Amino acid sequence: MSIFYAVGVGSGNPLEITLQAKQILEQVDVIVIPVTQEQASSIAFAIAEQVADMRNAEKLKIVFPMRKHINYKNYLKSGILLPITERLAMGKNIAMITLGDVSVYSTANYVRQVISEQGYHTQVIAGISSFSSGVAKAQLSLCENQENLLILPAVNSPEVIKNALLQADNIIIMKAGNALAWLLPMLKELNLFDKTIMFYHLNMPDEYIGVPVIEKQSYFTILFIKKKGLC
Amino acid sequence: MSIFYAVGVGSGNPLEITLQAKQILEQVDVIVIPVTQEQASSIAFAIAEQVADMRNAEKLKIVFPMRKHINYKNYLKSGILLPITERLAMGKNIAMITLGDVSVYSTANYVRQVISEQGYHTQVIAGISSFSSGVAKAQLSLCENQENLLILPAVNSPEVIKNALLQADNIIIMKAGNALAWLLPMLKELNLFDKTIMFYHLNMPDEYIGVPVIEKQSYFTILFIKKKGLC
Repeated sequence: MSIFYAVGVGSGNPLEITLQAKQILEQVDVIVIPVTQEQASSIAFAIAEQVADMRNAEKLKIVFPMRKHINYKNYLKSGILLPITERLAMGKNIAMITLGDVSVYSTANYVRQVISEQGYHTQVIAGISSFSSGVAKAQLSLCENQENLLILPAVNSPEVIKNALLQADNIIIMKAGNALAWLLPMLKELNLFDKTIMFYHLNMPDEYIGVPVIEKQSYFTILFIKKKGLC
Repeated sequence: MSIFYAVGVGSGNPLEITLQAKQILEQVDVIVIPVTQEQASSIAFAIAEQVADMRNAEKLKIVFPMRKHINYKNYLKSGILLPITERLAMGKNIAMITLGDVSVYSTANYVRQVISEQGYHTQVIAGISSFSSGVAKAQLSLCENQENLLILPAVNSPEVIKNALLQADNIIIMKAGNALAWLLPMLKELNLFDKTIMFYHLNMPDEYIGVPVIEKQSYFTILFIKKKGLC
């Protein structure tokens, strides 16, 4: 019985990979490497490669374009997963690597759903999410006592984000890069700027963890707002 | 320079431990094992022991009572951390193990704060949180697209929980065991019962993942409500 594994490999530090993820990456017949363009390299693969021996597995690069305004699940049913399902039908075990945690805004989770709907066995291997990795490095807690934690992406309207900032005790804003032009003034207006820490290119050579700055625009920019203060 | 590490060991599956956590547990001089009572055993240690060789480290059992209604940080300053700080002063490296993720409602995070305030170096090693482990096993996503995810403990008033259920797209209710008597009727009233999955004693022999049932009362009971449905 072949299995499709969606494997989270953590957020840039190879040592963040779990024992289970390493074990599975070293056992499967095929590694699916998601890329955004045909010629692009994969950060997730570069990370995993440092700690998992995947030499004997077939590497299957598949282009998953980042597209905000399409129905992604329908798109995945258009045939681009055939290289995966053909190999599953041949009895091969397959692992698709993904940055962070599979359950948090990941393409791998959609892929797993579509493959499962076609009758194949699937499994999810949890990974350390980017926000968990970031707050650990900054030695901050995400939530304490009775506090709540709200996680949402900046691909929401300013009104939605403002409401989140007003209501929750701790807020993680993912994919904040493109929204910094209005997000940073909003944080100042709500007197939350001093209670915000920015994570940019976490665990990469140009990593930045500190006061939010407008220049650090990236798909991987995360803001963490902690209302009781950054301590 | 001695270091105090707060180490997350995941949520019951030893293979969920990260390579980094294993490495640190195998290198330090002292392992701090938190227990709730003098004679209690530690689930976290039992998990870690299966994959990390800690034979050569001193095991330091410290009682951290569960108390809702005290100022925990002040309590930790009353002297119970002296066995830790004395050893740090002697140049020893210390790792305190904790279930799940250190940044999510953990005692280890308070301990780290207090030790850091006393001038010692500290580090946090992120772990797989219980909710992340649970949804991976159930093959559900925590959040997709523009959706948000709200995490909060059931040690809040029914009004606070109801408001959370009304507002968020995806809701994790931690420590739900004691609150099931009013939580389950509330979920039915809001037509969310069919969109709720219960995690009870995750990764333990009596693990239960399924429809919420009133009998599964535990400190480790978690509810996950996914408004767009459990698929």
